[in-house]
Amino acid sequence: MTSNNCVRIGLLGCGTVGSQVVRLLQQSRCDYEARSATCLTLQGIAVSRLDAQRPAWVDTSLLTTDANKVVDEADVVIELIGGIDPAHELVVRALTQGKTVVTGNKALLASHGKELFELCANHNASLYYEAAVAGAVPVVYGLRESLTGDRINCVQGIVNGTTNYILDKMDTQGWSYEKALSVAQELGFAEADPTADVDGLDAGAKCALLASLAFHSRVTMEDVSIQGISHLSAKDMKDAKDAGCTIKLIAEAKRIRGADGKDAISAVVAPMLIGPDNPLFSVGGAFNAILIDSDAAGRLMFYGQGAGGAPTASAVLSDVVAAAFHCKHGGHAPRESTYASLPIVDKEHAQAAFRIRLSVHDEIGVLHRIAGIVAQHGISISGLQQSGSEDENRAHVVVTTHVTTQGQIDTLLNELRSTPELCTVASVIRQ
Amino acid sequence: MTSNNCVRIGLLGCGTVGSQVVRLLQQSRCDYEARSATCLTLQGIAVSRLDAQRPAWVDTSLLTTDANKVVDEADVVIELIGGIDPAHELVVRALTQGKTVVTGNKALLASHGKELFELCANHNASLYYEAAVAGAVPVVYGLRESLTGDRINCVQGIVNGTTNYILDKMDTQGWSYEKALSVAQELGFAEADPTADVDGLDAGAKCALLASLAFHSRVTMEDVSIQGISHLSAKDMKDAKDAGCTIKLIAEAKRIRGADGKDAISAVVAPMLIGPDNPLFSVGGAFNAILIDSDAAGRLMFYGQGAGGAPTASAVLSDVVAAAFHCKHGGHAPRESTYASLPIVDKEHAQAAFRIRLSVHDEIGVLHRIAGIVAQHGISISGLQQSGSEDENRAHVVVTTHVTTQGQIDTLLNELRSTPELCTVASVIRQ
Repeated sequence: MTSNNCVRIGLLGCGTVGSQVVRLLQQSRCDYEARSATCLTLQGIAVSRLDAQRPAWVDTSLLTTDANKVVDEADVVIELIGGIDPAHELVVRALTQGKTVVTGNKALLASHGKELFELCANHNASLYYEAAVAGAVPVVYGLRESLTGDRINCVQGIVNGTTNYILDKMDTQGWSYEKALSVAQELGFAEADPTADVDGLDAGAKCALLASLAFHSRVTMEDVSIQGISHLSAKDMKDAKDAGCTIKLIAEAKRIRGADGKDAISAVVAPMLIGPDNPLFSVGGAFNAILIDSDAAGRLMFYGQGAGGAPTASAVLSDVVAAAFHCKHGGHAPRESTYASLPIVDKEHAQAAFRIRLSVHDEIGVLHRIAGIVAQHGISISGLQQSGSEDENRAHVVVTTHVTTQGQIDTLLNELRSTPELCTVASVIRQ
Repeated sequence: MTSNNCVRIGLLGCGTVGSQVVRLLQQSRCDYEARSATCLTLQGIAVSRLDAQRPAWVDTSLLTTDANKVVDEADVVIELIGGIDPAHELVVRALTQGKTVVTGNKALLASHGKELFELCANHNASLYYEAAVAGAVPVVYGLRESLTGDRINCVQGIVNGTTNYILDKMDTQGWSYEKALSVAQELGFAEADPTADVDGLDAGAKCALLASLAFHSRVTMEDVSIQGISHLSAKDMKDAKDAGCTIKLIAEAKRIRGADGKDAISAVVAPMLIGPDNPLFSVGGAFNAILIDSDAAGRLMFYGQGAGGAPTASAVLSDVVAAAFHCKHGGHAPRESTYASLPIVDKEHAQAAFRIRLSVHDEIGVLHRIAGIVAQHGISISGLQQSGSEDENRAHVVVTTHVTTQGQIDTLLNELRSTPELCTVASVIRQ
């Protein structure tokens, strides 16, 4: 390999994933060099604190707090800082210099994707982001390249390992949400502040990326209707189990018929009732899976580890091998493909069948009154079930609807919530 | 799109898959053109008989029996004839002219891959073959591109829909092999001559391709140890079910420690006992799935429809979009990667634990005699079970072994088969 083939790699961030990238670059460099027909050098590692504890394999002489210098001296920049600042500024700096960036930063892409992809086009730069969705599961490659011969109708993904772990424990162990969250935190599957995971924000960013890729359109985080799982209880999970189903937090991007009769995109993250005929049903623990439904291929599923240092580093390094090859032998990352420019359905027009669990005062006529309120909102009921609760003065009522819009459900929920003498809304799940 | 961007497509073969390719090219041409930034023209379709019945959407004015002409006038040649002749000659003709070939022909690749990939390198031609393994399931992309950042240890695949359908029916319906095969034939899931499927030859060709991709080495059909499923009976499936398992025909390519202590490849197609902890356990019907175990990513699975006109055409057209882009905007299909050149373990040295079912004369001491023969061959027994059979003079004996070599098992089976007064060998399954 001549020195002309040398690709200088700059790493931004050396946490859980970053340090695994360093390890794999050492352990498998000969393989990566043979596969990319280049010579790879890790030039520098930008960190915020030089004195933090790091694994023994990290060469401390490469560490620096000068992230700009790491960017400027690299051919390929790996951004694993996460979050918006300072990642955004550094990625912009690299792309403006026409460099190649490999990132796992879903939040940055879902909020600043337009700007970053335009920089790529204008500066002949490249942006790879396999690690940004579902860790080691190669769904970005799958949608960007393997499925370009087909027309995708729906993408449904379990893309957040934390919430899948919590829901899995609620299902298999009968734990409450609070207990499952607390065990997940003890085991390191959930952060001390679990908001981004349990409120669906992490899945929302990934949903935006999946929708953009699947439908060749630009979908941002703001376009995604997001509900989290923190309002779910052991009772909801038991009801689901009794029906032979389970509840999963699903990121769903669907092609639907818009109000004008033309194709549009619906992008939703919400807890959904999943039956055993759906391959996502048995995806447990911290695993991720993405189910794709397309015209010609039918159902396809990608399954694997969605988080963790080594699995995510595996995805980063696949991008690094492709990036290094393109740096020295021509080509670049696939450009953003937004030719279809499908409109995104307003959140309030997103359609689904819902399952609403209410806690009601256990008195004669309560079912009748609730059914009346639902009917007044023009929502068709597919089922209405009452069961006792631990509090003898109260009962559970589960209202299941036919397909309706999120807007109609929201108006209904507002009215139900304004009648506390009648009921309180315990949970809302999509079916 | 200027005419300079026009890519002329020549199609060889217009059967189940070919006619679906024609349909999708018509239906989704605008999408494919936008995604490849080219203009696509279907220039000609080579068929062996002009008067055969074809779907209405096939423009008969494009049909010709002059396959050479179709090759010579195309930029991208889609080969869907199957088999070796005349596909081989036509693909060689196209590659020698520096053209791009998209094929789904596993038999051709597994037997003539070396020649074809060398033609690509020497003539700057390209060869795409996503459709050759597991139909719509993008495992070729997955192994060629998405997993280049990792070190793969094992690939296990259900890659033949016919045998999976037969085994699925034997499992779920309790049918005999003969009945399941005959229903599969009636439904069109199995050919009138099912040999290539039930004897494992189709899976063997795919196993060679998977092994080549996973281990960056050249593995041919001849390197694969192949056993089919035609000797399996309802009794074997029942025994498997009683143990909470099922039997699947698995194509397995594994990295093992060779006799010299260095890495080597073991490539096997055989019926294997699969437990419920293996994600392949629940892959039923005509679906395909490939499970990959790698150092950093851990377990990954790809799942989808492995055969059929439209699913296979979906994979072909993804390759066509990539090929068209590369034709006009630079780049080519990934070159064959054989840098690792791992040796392939002799079939007789391939290792596994086996489960051998014998039909024996039901008399005192028979278990003892069989155990003695097994021990004489230096094979360690992990279990020995006897049960009655419908014939009161005979019994079933199941011998399960610890890990041993195919060579030792073959010698043992030869001896057992030469003692017909003692027993007959009913089935051999890997565990």
